[in-house]
Parts: sequence; C-alpha cells; structure tokens
Amino acid sequence: MAIGVNALAFVAVAQVLALAGVVMVLVWCIYFMGGLAWEAPKKSLIFNIHPVLMLIGLVIIGGEAIMTFKALPLKKEVKKIIHMVLHAIALVLGIIGIYAAFKFHNEESIVNLYSLHSWLGMGIIVLYGIQWIYGFLIFLFPGGSSAVRSESLPWHVILGLILFSLAVGNAVMGFLEKLVFLETYGLAKFGAEAYLVNFTAVVTVLYGVFVVFSVLSQPVVVVEEESAYTAL
Amino acid sequence: MAIGVNALAFVAVAQVLALAGVVMVLVWCIYFMGGLAWEAPKKSLIFNIHPVLMLIGLVIIGGEAIMTFKALPLKKEVKKIIHMVLHAIALVLGIIGIYAAFKFHNEESIVNLYSLHSWLGMGIIVLYGIQWIYGFLIFLFPGGSSAVRSESLPWHVILGLILFSLAVGNAVMGFLEKLVFLETYGLAKFGAEAYLVNFTAVVTVLYGVFVVFSVLSQPVVVVEEESAYTAL
Ligand code: HEM
Ligand code: HEM
Ligand code: HEM
Ligand code: HEM
Repeated sequence: MAIGVNALAFVAVAQVLALAGVVMVLVWCIYFMGGLAWEAPKKSLIFNIHPVLMLIGLVIIGGEAIMTFKALPLKKEVKKIIHMVLHAIALVLGIIGIYAAFKFHNEESIVNLYSLHSWLGMGIIVLYGIQWIYGFLIFLFPGGSSAVRSESLPWHVILGLILFSLAVGNAVMGFLEKLVFLETYGLAKFGAEAYLVNFTAVVTVLYGVFVVFSVLSQPVVVVEEESAYTAL
Repeated sequence: MAIGVNALAFVAVAQVLALAGVVMVLVWCIYFMGGLAWEAPKKSLIFNIHPVLMLIGLVIIGGEAIMTFKALPLKKEVKKIIHMVLHAIALVLGIIGIYAAFKFHNEESIVNLYSLHSWLGMGIIVLYGIQWIYGFLIFLFPGGSSAVRSESLPWHVILGLILFSLAVGNAVMGFLEKLVFLETYGLAKFGAEAYLVNFTAVVTVLYGVFVVFSVLSQPVVVVEEESAYTAL
C-alpha cells in the first residue's frame, strides 16, 4: 500500500511543522511557564523539562529518524546508521524527559503513574526500547540472515509506525492534560497561552500525519536492494 | 507493505476488545455516572450520552466497517454495501454524540469548543463526512472510471486509517479529560472508577491497533479483482 507521491513533498512540510513545534513548545515552557530547571525551589520548572524533551525527543527526532530513509540521498548503509543514532537520541531524551516528570512528582509529593497518559507513556518508552534493540540486532549487528531480515522488515515498519503514532497521541494528550490542570487553576480558556498550547498540539498531530505519509509514499531515488517495498 | 498473517486472527481479537469496550463504557456511564438521558434536571446525564455514542459509533462501528473487507466471506459488492452502511451508522451516531456534548454545555452554560479534544473532534467528524461522500461517489454511485478508482484507493485506505486512528486517539483523550475533571472534584485517583475509565481507554487503543493490523495483513480468500493490494 503506497501513494504515488514523491516522499520529499511530505518530508519538506514535516520539517516546517517540526520547526514550528519546537519553537512553540519552547515559547510555552520558557516564556509562559517560567523556564526550565533541573533543581529549583519552584518545582514547576522541573516539570517544564518534560514537555520540551518529550516533544523534541520521542516525537520530532523520532519522526526525523523515520524519515531518514526517504529524506536523504545517501547510501542505505549510511542511512541505517543515521536512523539508528537518531532513534537512540530520541530514546535517551524520552527517558530523561520521563525522569523529569517523576522528579517533579516526587519533590511535590504527587503520586506517580496514576494517569492514562503516564501508563501509555511507560508502555511506549519500553516498547520503543525493545524496537530499538530488535532493530539493532537484526539489521545492524550481528544482523539476521537475509530471510529473517526480509521477514522482520514489514513488522519493523508497521510496529514502528504504530509506536510513533502512539507517541504523537500521548504527547497531544499530555498537552491537553496540562492545560486542563492550568485551566482548573484559573487560566483563561480562550487566552493566549491556551491557544498556544492547543496549536502546539495541532502542529504535533499534523507533523505525525506527514511523517506517516512520507513512509507510505514513494522514495525519491530507488537504488536500494532491500527497501520495505521491494522486499514485499 | 503488508504482514504475512491471516487477517482473521486480528479480526477475532478485535471483536473481543470491541465487546469489552462497549460493556465497559456502558458500566461506567450507567452504573458509575448515573445513566443516560436526553432531557433531565441532572444535566450530567445528558453528557453521558457523549462517550457512549462516540465510542460505539465512530470508534467501534467505524472499526467494524473497516474490517468488513477482511472479516466477511462475501462477494466484494456486498461487502462494499456493508462497509458503506456501517460507516453511515458510525457517522450518524458520531453526530448525535457530539450534539449531546453541545447540548450539555449549553444547558449548563459551559462555553463550547474551547478544548483541543473538541477542536480535533470537529475536524474528525467533518473529514469523516467528506471521506464518506467521496467513497460513495467514487466506489458506489455513480462510480469513477476504473483508473480513477485505482488511483483513489490507496488514498482512501491511508486517509481512512489516519482518520480512524485520530478518532481512536480523540476518544482516548476524551476519557482522560473527563477523568481529570472528576478527579478535580475529588474522585480517587486509584479508585474503582478511575481504573475502569483508564482500562476502557487502554482497550480502545488496543482495538484501534488490531483494526489497523487487520488492514495491513492478508485477506483470507483472495478472490477480489480490485483490492488495495492487487491494485498497487
Ligand atoms: C510521547 C511523549 C510523552 C510520554 C511518553 C510521556 C510520559 C509520561 C509519564 C510516564 C508520566 C508519569 C510521571 C509520573 O507518574 O511521575 C508523565 C506525566 C505527565 N506528562 Fe507526559 N509524556 C509525554 C509527553 C508529554 C507532553 C508533550 C506533555 C505536555 C505538557 C506532557 C504532560 C504531562 C503531565 C501534565 C504529566 C503529569 C500528570 C500525569 O502523571 O499524567 N507529557 N508523562
Ligand atoms: C538500532 C535501531 C534500528 C535499526 C538498525 C533500524 C533499521 C531499519 C531498517 C534497515 C529499515 C528499512 C528501511 C527500508 O529498507 O526501507 C527501517 C525502517 C523503518 N524503521 Fe527502523 N531501525 C531501528 C530502530 C527503529 C525504531 C526505534 C523505530 C520506531 C519506533 C523504527 C521505525 C522504522 C520505520 C517506521 C521504518 C520505515 C521507514 C520507511 O520505509 O520510510 N526503527 N529501520
Ligand atoms: C472520536 C470520538 C469523539 C469525538 C469526535 C468527540 C468530539 C467532541 C466535541 C466536538 C466536543 C465539544 C462539545 C462542545 O464544545 O460543546 C466534545 C466535548 C467533550 N468530550 Fe468528546 N468526542 C469524542 C469522544 C469522547 C469520549 C470517548 C469521551 C469520554 C468521556 C469524551 C469526553 C468529552 C468531554 C469531557 C467533553 C467536554 C469538554 C470539552 O469540550 O473538551 N469525548 N467532544
Ligand atoms: C460510502 C462510503 C464508502 C465507500 C463506498 C467505500 C469503499 C471502499 C472500497 C471499495 C474499499 C476497497 C476494499 C479493497 O478493495 O480492499 C474500501 C476500503 C477501505 N475503506 Fe472505505 N468506503 C467508504 C467509506 C469509508 C470511510 C468513511 C472510511 C474511514 C473513515 C473508510 C475506510 C476504509 C479503509 C481503512 C479501507 C481498507 C480496508 C482493507 O483493505 O482492509 N471507508 N472502502
């Protein structure tokens, strides 16, 4: 199943959305919510690290990692390394970001892991780690036989896309949850900050949709022997 | 891109999850939240119609509509009608369900359309309607030329899956939002009702994943001339 559109069109739009998303989440957490800090008497600054790292890490860098194969005019072996390294960065930022949320909860004596967002979040980060390890072992080192590789590839792509979509969805849910908390404490429902947060989430959804489209569209130069499409 | 697994395996699991989801949302809205009503002095009963119809309509019946082509051992023409009718039911229940949310807001003097959930929700229902009309015109009546049909099909499938995923994500976000409201009014974070709502949402996500898998897996009997896979 693929669409007859040059993937670069989707990749290009995705880059614009990625940039917009990064700027928006930073403006929100730094300008509106007072900044980022790892140690601070004002504990909410510790929390602020969480949305920044989750969005930039798991969602945006994770999406860039996925687009590597379609976006870059390089040899397959090189793209595989870039894909692997970007996913490693995404995973590490994701883990630090989740750690920041726990740190905030602990220092503020809020219970951990009570929400749907946190449950799905833990599931996602664990599966992301497993997907990374499996990808590394099968496609890089030591590498599976070519039968195992071509059997695994569609699963890798589909599970990878589902995981990425869940990460996008969970990030959006995080924005909504935080905004509801803030509104409960009196933030205006139609004020500047509420619009900023909601539009950051809309940009996040659109970025996710364009990443998925890039995977389902046509690679620009078909010089690969083992791509997800020729392998099937 | 497809996985070499018989679609019926995914369809079977999806049915179990669908049943669980329906029972759970009904137990929540009727037993825990006091029941459903279109007119009532206790306005929250009007709201309760919303989660029930959205989950059963757009998510579950929408998912069943998508699985039709893989699940039923019937002729393509018959399955197309079933697919169309189920999507029509999903759409109508979705519209009534959204109407109930607005009715509740209006009678309680709560502003409309302030949340991300409501924005995404409006986007989804409108796009769903467009997808339905386009599908009807191209694949049923008057029907496009066979070139237009085979050009449209991958777009129809991919946009349909994206829309369905967004509906699943938005439903999950709705559960989270309502639960946050209830917890602000004192509901126990680790009580029976919180667990019920969170697990309903988890079941909803899993149902969505299995529907997506069914589309990406192998049809049981390949007797179609124009399926999404042979057409590409
Ligand atoms: C895919 C990305 C994300 C993942 C995997 C994730 C994961 C998590 C986890 C595991 C927790 C639980 C911490 C604890 O219980 O101590 C949490 C808390 C939280 N996160 Fe995220 N998060 C993500 C993105 C976001 C974003 C973008 C926001 C936007 C503001 C956000 C808002 C929150 C809030 C408000 C909490 C505290 C309330 C709660 O526990 O639900 N999250 N997150
Ligand atoms: C060490 C880690 C990883 C390695 C070595 C690896 C390797 C690969 C390879 C060889 C491809 C095939 C590209 C092609 O032939 O078309 C691929 C594609 C893909 N991978 Fe990974 N992967 C890793 C981690 C991940 C992770 C953690 C995710 C997501 C959570 C992921 C998601 C994807 C997706 C969605 C594609 C499809 C890209 C496309 O076809 O446009 N990968 N990966
Ligand atoms: C795909 C399914 C869904 C769609 C398209 C959808 C759509 C909407 C829309 C358009 C509104 C706005 C009403 C207004 O502004 O007057 C709304 C409100 C609401 N919905 Fe949903 N909904 C869905 C599923 C759910 C579910 C399963 C729940 C679970 C409880 C839920 C909880 C809420 C809540 C609490 C509100 C009121 C607060 C708000 O406006 O955000 N929704 N929904
Ligand atoms: C009158 C309305 C519609 C008609 C006539 C129609 C027609 C079709 C046809 C002919 C197929 C091809 C099946 C095949 O050859 O494999 C199909 C598949 C599909 N449709 Fe529709 N459709 C309609 C509405 C919708 C809507 C509203 C959605 C989702 C929001 C949707 C989502 C899908 C999906 C995901 C598939 C792929 C199923 C699979 O291959 O397993 N359709 N539809």
